[in-house]
Amino acid sequence: MHKGQLMYEGKAKKLFETNDPNELVVEYKNDLTAFNGQKKAEQQGKGALNNHISSLLFERLSEADIPNHWLKQLSEMEQLVKHTDIIPIEVVIRNVAAGSIAKRLGLEEGLALAFPIIEFYYKDDALGDPLINDDHINLLNLASHDELDEMRELASKVNDVLLELFRACELKLVDFKLEFGKDPSGKLILSDEVSPDTCRLWDVHTNKKLDKDVFRQDLGSVEDSYQEILNRLRGAVAHG
Amino acid sequence: MHKGQLMYEGKAKKLFETNDPNELVVEYKNDLTAFNGQKKAEQQGKGALNNHISSLLFERLSEADIPNHWLKQLSEMEQLVKHTDIIPIEVVIRNVAAGSIAKRLGLEEGLALAFPIIEFYYKDDALGDPLINDDHINLLNLASHDELDEMRELASKVNDVLLELFRACELKLVDFKLEFGKDPSGKLILSDEVSPDTCRLWDVHTNKKLDKDVFRQDLGSVEDSYQEILNRLRGAVAHG
Ligand SMILES: Nc1ncnc2c1ncn2[C@@H]1O[C@H](COP(=O)(O)OP(=O)(O)OP(=O)(O)O)[C@@H](O)[C@H]1O
Ligand SMILES: Nc1ncnc2c1ncn2[C@@H]1O[C@H](COP(=O)(O)OP(=O)(O)OP(=O)(O)O)[C@@H](O)[C@H]1O
Ligand SMILES: [Mg+2]
Ligand SMILES: [Mg+2]
Repeated sequence: MHKGQLMYEGKAKKLFETNDPNELVVEYKNDLTAFNGQKKAEQQGKGALNNHISSLLFERLSEADIPNHWLKQLSEMEQLVKHTDIIPIEVVIRNVAAGSIAKRLGLEEGLALAFPIIEFYYKDDALGDPLINDDHINLLNLASHDELDEMRELASKVNDVLLELFRACELKLVDFKLEFGKDPSGKLILSDEVSPDTCRLWDVHTNKKLDKDVFRQDLGSVEDSYQEILNRLRGAVAHG
Repeated sequence: MHKGQLMYEGKAKKLFETNDPNELVVEYKNDLTAFNGQKKAEQQGKGALNNHISSLLFERLSEADIPNHWLKQLSEMEQLVKHTDIIPIEVVIRNVAAGSIAKRLGLEEGLALAFPIIEFYYKDDALGDPLINDDHINLLNLASHDELDEMRELASKVNDVLLELFRACELKLVDFKLEFGKDPSGKLILSDEVSPDTCRLWDVHTNKKLDKDVFRQDLGSVEDSYQEILNRLRGAVAHG
């Protein structure tokens, strides 16, 4: 495997071509951004922690037969993934009210939701990633009706797997964001990352936040929080 | 029929009890409000025009067998309706991009949509009437799955009827908002009003706005615009 040209640089990761057009190297960055890029910082160690955590979670999702892009971890900051054609929809799954849903519906942060809520957001920074419904998705031709149903089903399965794993870590999986892509045959493949940058994770006893809200809300050390999550995950995997 | 106690005063209408608990008198007000109540004005003649227009449109919808609350016009400013239990969802149907959908999806105002888009908003002034999806509605227990499907179907039928009527008036039905209620047996009943306060209507040739956007955007005389709509509707009904 040869790490080639930089293909795309996002806010949290860089994508590099390889000698295989169907595979990419993902390099995790130490950059942190929030509020649609308005708040920025660099945090030593963050990229490696997210790379370790995302790799561990994708491995678990593979074991649970969820089709996904992850192939292997290459180094501290890098992993190898399948190159997919990303669907520009952010799929958010919520188990507990926090963030925008608390604001939107007037719910208290921390309220356990009666069932997992799935939301679709249009992945478009210029528009501020707005909430959209199935009609909007259809109008913009972002995904077919069947693809939406499949994304909902896969998201729900991912939630089941992660809820169980994090429960073993004494972590509350409040909510998280997924991105799906299509492989060359058109099959839906879970892509992007699953990390404390894209999940809300609270200590189950104290409700202490251990995810990107530590950065958003200036609650302490991002590195310590993410390290705590990785330690607990490694403990759970070792004993699980 | 006896007009009794004031039951509720909204921004555009007052509801009065009658001697029949299943019937209400709706009195249309001359008040205009926009931007969630931040912009306010009074316009002589507006209440009567909306009462006439809404009555004429509900009569047409009744002829098309769409279950609705309208019973009869009582006077210049008043109509008699069935008392329904309002579902706190604003159902918006869009044929052409304008207003919030243009902003949300980055579409140019005036773009003809490939098919009618239906959106649900949570009718809650304190929250600013946010867009919601089916999961939110389910979580908040606002309506059942079947009721949502029925609301979508009824909204689509209303759109067909109104599109045809307004086409005969050389008016473009850009979008409109509906509210549904339930009668004592639980049956869904189209309620509230259908008027230039709740529809966007543009002249089909010039795209001149003849609806509440005239007030929102200070485009001229609200009374003249609403009168123009009523005149065209009366012409169409007389010749239709
Ligand atoms: N398997 C994959 N194949 C192709 N692209 C992918 C894959 N997994 C993730 N991506 C894309 O990689 C890009 C870089 O990720 P990063 O998280 O840095 O982006 P971002 O700044 O959050 O968002 P944006 O997509 O707006 O750049 C994202 O656009 C993401 O959708
Ligand atoms: N048939 C009906 N039975 C009971 N209530 C109705 C009926 N039709 C409409 N309403 C309600 O009448 C109220 C007054 O209407 P109006 O348009 O003035 O309210 P609004 O200020 O727009 O909104 P809000 O509902 O927030 O007061 C609305 O709450 C509407 O839902
Ligand atoms: Mg990202
Ligand atoms: Mg109203």
